[in-house]
Amino acid sequence: MSEKQQVSEKMQQLIELSAEITDLSHINAVLGWDQQINMPPGGAEERGAQSAALGRIIHEKFTSDEVGQLIADLEEEVGDLNAETDEARAVKVAKREYEKQTKVPLPLLMEFIQTTTMAHESWLEAKNKSDFSLFQPHLKKIVELRQQYAELFKPYDHVYDPLLDDYEPGMKTAEVKEIFNKLRPQQVALLQAIAEKEPPDDSFIKQYYKEEYQEIIGRYVITRFGYDWNRGRLDIAPHPFTTEFGYGDVRISTRYLKDDAGSALFSTMHEAGHAMYGQGVPEKYKRHPLGGAASLAIHESQSRLWENIIGRSKEFWSFFYPSLQMLFPQYLSDISVEEYYRGINKVEPSLIRVEADEATYNMHIMLRLEIEIGLMEGTMKVEDLPEIWNAKMQDYLGITPPDDAQGVLQDVHWSAGMIGYFPTYALGNLASVQLWDKLVEENPNVYDEIAQGKFDTILGWMREHVHQYGSKFEPQEIMLNATGSKITPEPYIAYLKKKYGDIYDL
Amino acid sequence: MSEKQQVSEKMQQLIELSAEITDLSHINAVLGWDQQINMPPGGAEERGAQSAALGRIIHEKFTSDEVGQLIADLEEEVGDLNAETDEARAVKVAKREYEKQTKVPLPLLMEFIQTTTMAHESWLEAKNKSDFSLFQPHLKKIVELRQQYAELFKPYDHVYDPLLDDYEPGMKTAEVKEIFNKLRPQQVALLQAIAEKEPPDDSFIKQYYKEEYQEIIGRYVITRFGYDWNRGRLDIAPHPFTTEFGYGDVRISTRYLKDDAGSALFSTMHEAGHAMYGQGVPEKYKRHPLGGAASLAIHESQSRLWENIIGRSKEFWSFFYPSLQMLFPQYLSDISVEEYYRGINKVEPSLIRVEADEATYNMHIMLRLEIEIGLMEGTMKVEDLPEIWNAKMQDYLGITPPDDAQGVLQDVHWSAGMIGYFPTYALGNLASVQLWDKLVEENPNVYDEIAQGKFDTILGWMREHVHQYGSKFEPQEIMLNATGSKITPEPYIAYLKKKYGDIYDL
Repeated sequence: MSEKQQVSEKMQQLIELSAEITDLSHINAVLGWDQQINMPPGGAEERGAQSAALGRIIHEKFTSDEVGQLIADLEEEVGDLNAETDEARAVKVAKREYEKQTKVPLPLLMEFIQTTTMAHESWLEAKNKSDFSLFQPHLKKIVELRQQYAELFKPYDHVYDPLLDDYEPGMKTAEVKEIFNKLRPQQVALLQAIAEKEPPDDSFIKQYYKEEYQEIIGRYVITRFGYDWNRGRLDIAPHPFTTEFGYGDVRISTRYLKDDAGSALFSTMHEAGHAMYGQGVPEKYKRHPLGGAASLAIHESQSRLWENIIGRSKEFWSFFYPSLQMLFPQYLSDISVEEYYRGINKVEPSLIRVEADEATYNMHIMLRLEIEIGLMEGTMKVEDLPEIWNAKMQDYLGITPPDDAQGVLQDVHWSAGMIGYFPTYALGNLASVQLWDKLVEENPNVYDEIAQGKFDTILGWMREHVHQYGSKFEPQEIMLNATGSKITPEPYIAYLKKKYGDIYDL
Repeated sequence: MSEKQQVSEKMQQLIELSAEITDLSHINAVLGWDQQINMPPGGAEERGAQSAALGRIIHEKFTSDEVGQLIADLEEEVGDLNAETDEARAVKVAKREYEKQTKVPLPLLMEFIQTTTMAHESWLEAKNKSDFSLFQPHLKKIVELRQQYAELFKPYDHVYDPLLDDYEPGMKTAEVKEIFNKLRPQQVALLQAIAEKEPPDDSFIKQYYKEEYQEIIGRYVITRFGYDWNRGRLDIAPHPFTTEFGYGDVRISTRYLKDDAGSALFSTMHEAGHAMYGQGVPEKYKRHPLGGAASLAIHESQSRLWENIIGRSKEFWSFFYPSLQMLFPQYLSDISVEEYYRGINKVEPSLIRVEADEATYNMHIMLRLEIEIGLMEGTMKVEDLPEIWNAKMQDYLGITPPDDAQGVLQDVHWSAGMIGYFPTYALGNLASVQLWDKLVEENPNVYDEIAQGKFDTILGWMREHVHQYGSKFEPQEIMLNATGSKITPEPYIAYLKKKYGDIYDL
C-alpha cells in the first residue's frame, strides 16, 4: 500500500481507470464462464446482448480522449517507458492497449463481433455435419475483416504481424518463421526415427474409467502442485479452459471421457498450470494495469510444464502411480509403472491437435501457421482450405483426415476470429523446456522432489521468474531475464530427443 | 414485432434504453448468483468491486437528464399514463423508476451500498456467535440511512410508505395495517383452537433422507408443474432463491437437509413457483420496460400457491406419495398417505420464520412489521430489539428464543438494508388464496387434475391472469382484475379454517 501512496496524481488516475476496466472485463469473464459451464440453451440470445453491452461500455470507457490525454501526460511524466519501474511499464502497457483499441473504428469492431458470433454458430453446425461449405462464407468474411484490421496498423513488416502481436506482444512473424524453420526438420527426423520402432502398448488407458475416480486423482494431483482452492474451483465443460475473475478467483474446467483416462487428468494439470500463473501474479497487481499475464506463449509455457514436463515424467508417476492403481485396479494392477509411463508417452501421428502427443504437437501448429499466413497474404483461398489441410497433414504426419470435422473444422479459433493465436501454443512448448532447463540447472534435486510428490521448488521458481511480473515485461524480456535467451527451439529438441530416445531406444 | 414497428421514435428510444439497463441488471444478477452458488471465498472482495462498478454504471445511465427529458416527452406524447396500453404503462413504470432513482443523491446511495456490505459481514458473524451487539451499530446506521431515504419522498402519509413502495408499488402502510389488524385476531384464535388438540405425528419426516433422492422427487415434481428446464436450472445454495438473467434463463436453488425431507422439497416447489412466474412473462416483454414482475407480494402469491395450496394438499400427495414411498421405503412404507398429509401439515409454533407452517407463518411477519415501523417512527430503539423480539414471540406464539441467533438475528434482510420487504410475504400468502379461489370457481375440476398429476390448467390460469402482464399493472390492479378485489384477508382465513378444521377436527 505504501507504494501506491507515493504515486503521482495522474498515475493514481490511471490505476483507478484500470481498476474499473479490470472489474468490467472480469465481469465479462464471469458471463463467459457461466455460458460454458451452466447456462441453459434458452439463455443464449440474451447472454449475447449482455456481453455486447458490456463490451461496448469497456471500449467506450477506455478509448475516450481523456484517457488518451492522461496516457500522454503520464508518458511525459515518466520519461523512458522501458525503464524497469512499475510506473513506466504501467504507462507502456496502457499506451499499447490504447493505441491498439483507438485504431479500430467502432463500426469495424461491431461488425467483427457480429460476424464472429454468427460464424461460431455456423462452425458448430458445419463441424457437426462435417460440411466445410457451411462455414466457408463466414471464414471468408472473417479473413477479410482481419485483413482490414491489419491494414490499420500499417506500416508493418508482414501483414500477419498485427494479429500475432495481439496475442504475443512484440513478436514478429519473421521470428516465428525462423524458429519454426529450425524446428521442423528436427522434429520430422525424430518422428521418422520413432516410426521405425515398435510402439509401446497403451490399451490399458483406453478403457472405462469411472469419472468420479478420474476427478479424485485430478484434484489430488493439482492440490499437491499448489493450486489454491481458496481462490479457484474445478468444473466440467465440453472444452477445458481457465478463466480469471481477479486475483482471488481463477477457475479451471475439464472434461471426463469415459474411455480415455488420460484426457481429463492431463487437461486438469494443463489448466492448473495456467491457473497457478494467474494465482501467482502478486496481489499488488490486483485491479492494476500490470495485472494479467505477459503473453499467451508464456501462459502456455506454464500449462505445458505441469502437463508434460512434470505430468508425463517418470518421477511424477513413481509417486502418483500407486494412487492411480488403487482407484483403477481392474486395468492397472498388472501394469508396471514403467509400462504405464511408456504407454502415456506413446507417439502416434493423429488427426486432432488437442489429443496430440509431445512429439507431434508442434507439427499441427506449423500447419495452421502456414495456412493463416497464406490466408492473410492472399496466397491461399478459403475455399481451397480442406484440400490444403489434408495435403499438409499427409505431408507432415503421414495421415489424411477422413472428413473435414476431423480436419480443417476441428478447432474453434477461426470461428471466433482468432487468427494469430496458434503459434503461441508451439512457442509455449519451447518456452516451457527453456524455463525448465534453467530451473533444473539451479535446482538439481528437483527430480527427486517430484518423485516425493513435492512441487514447491518448481512453483516457487516460476513465481519468482515468471508469475511475479504479471504483464510488466514483454514475453521475450521474461525469457531473457529468466533463461538468458529469447525463445529458441534447441532446448525443446534436445528434450524430445532425450525423452523419446530413452523410451524408443533410438 | 409488428407492434414494435408501430411505436414512435421516442418510444423506441425508451425501449432501447430499457434493453440496455435490463441487460446490465441481469449481468448483476449473474454476479450475485455465481457469488452464492460457486464463488470461492477468495473472490469476495473483487466481486464486491465488480458489482459496485456495474451498479454505478446502471445508475448513471438511467438517471441522466436526457432520460428525464425522454420520459417527459413521452408523457406528453402518451397522455394518460393509466391508460391500459403498453405504451402508457411503459412510460408510467419508467417515470416511477426515474423519479425514485433521481431523488437519491449518489453519495447517499454509495453510503448505503458500503454500509450494507459491511453490515452483511457483521450480521453473519453476529448470527454465528449469537451476539446482537456485533450487529447493533450497523443496524442503527442502516435505520438512519433508511430514514434519510424516506425523507427524500416527503410528503408521505407514513414514514414507512416510501420503503414499502419499493417492494410493493402503490401499497400504503395504512392498508397493510388494516389487513393485518383483521388477520391477527382470527389467526390467533385458530392457533389457540389447534393448540388444544392432539398434534399429528411427523417423526417420519425427521429422518435421514438421502440428498440425491430428495433431488429426484424435487425435479420430478416441478417438471410436472411446468418449470421450463430449457430456460432454467436447479442448483444448491445455503439459502434457496430464484434469480432471472432474462426471459430465457430463470434459475432456482434449494438446499438438502439430511434430517428433514420436507425442507428441500417444499422450498423447491416454492422457488419453482417464483421461477414459473418469471418464465411466464411473455417474450414481447423481453428486455422491455414492462418485463419483470408486478411486485413482491404477487411474486410470493405464486411461490406460496405451488408450495402450500398445491404442494401441501391431499390431492397432490394422492398422486406423488407412491413415488416418495418408492424412494424412501424405510420411513414411509408403513405410513399411509393420510398420515403423511397430516404430518406435513402439523401446526407448531416455532422460532424460525422460513420453517414455519401455514398457520403460524403470518405471525412472524406481523412481528417484523411492527418492529420495522417502530424503528422507522423512532418509537423503538435498535438496542432494545432482542428484548422486544422475544417479548413479541412469547406474546404471539407462546415461545421464547433461547438465543438471538434463533431470534432477532435469524433473517438476512435488515443486514442488506431491506426494510419494508417483510410484509410482502404475508400479503403474498393472502393473494395466493384469493387467486386460487377464483381459479377453482372457474375450474371446479382442478382438484381432480392435481390428483392426476396435471397442472396445466393452473399454470395456464396464472399465465393468463398474472404472468402475461409482467410489470404492466400495479399489484392491486392485478388482484382486482383477476379476483374482483384488492388483497384482503378473508379468503386466507377461510382457507386456514377449512384446512386445519379437517386436519385437527376443530
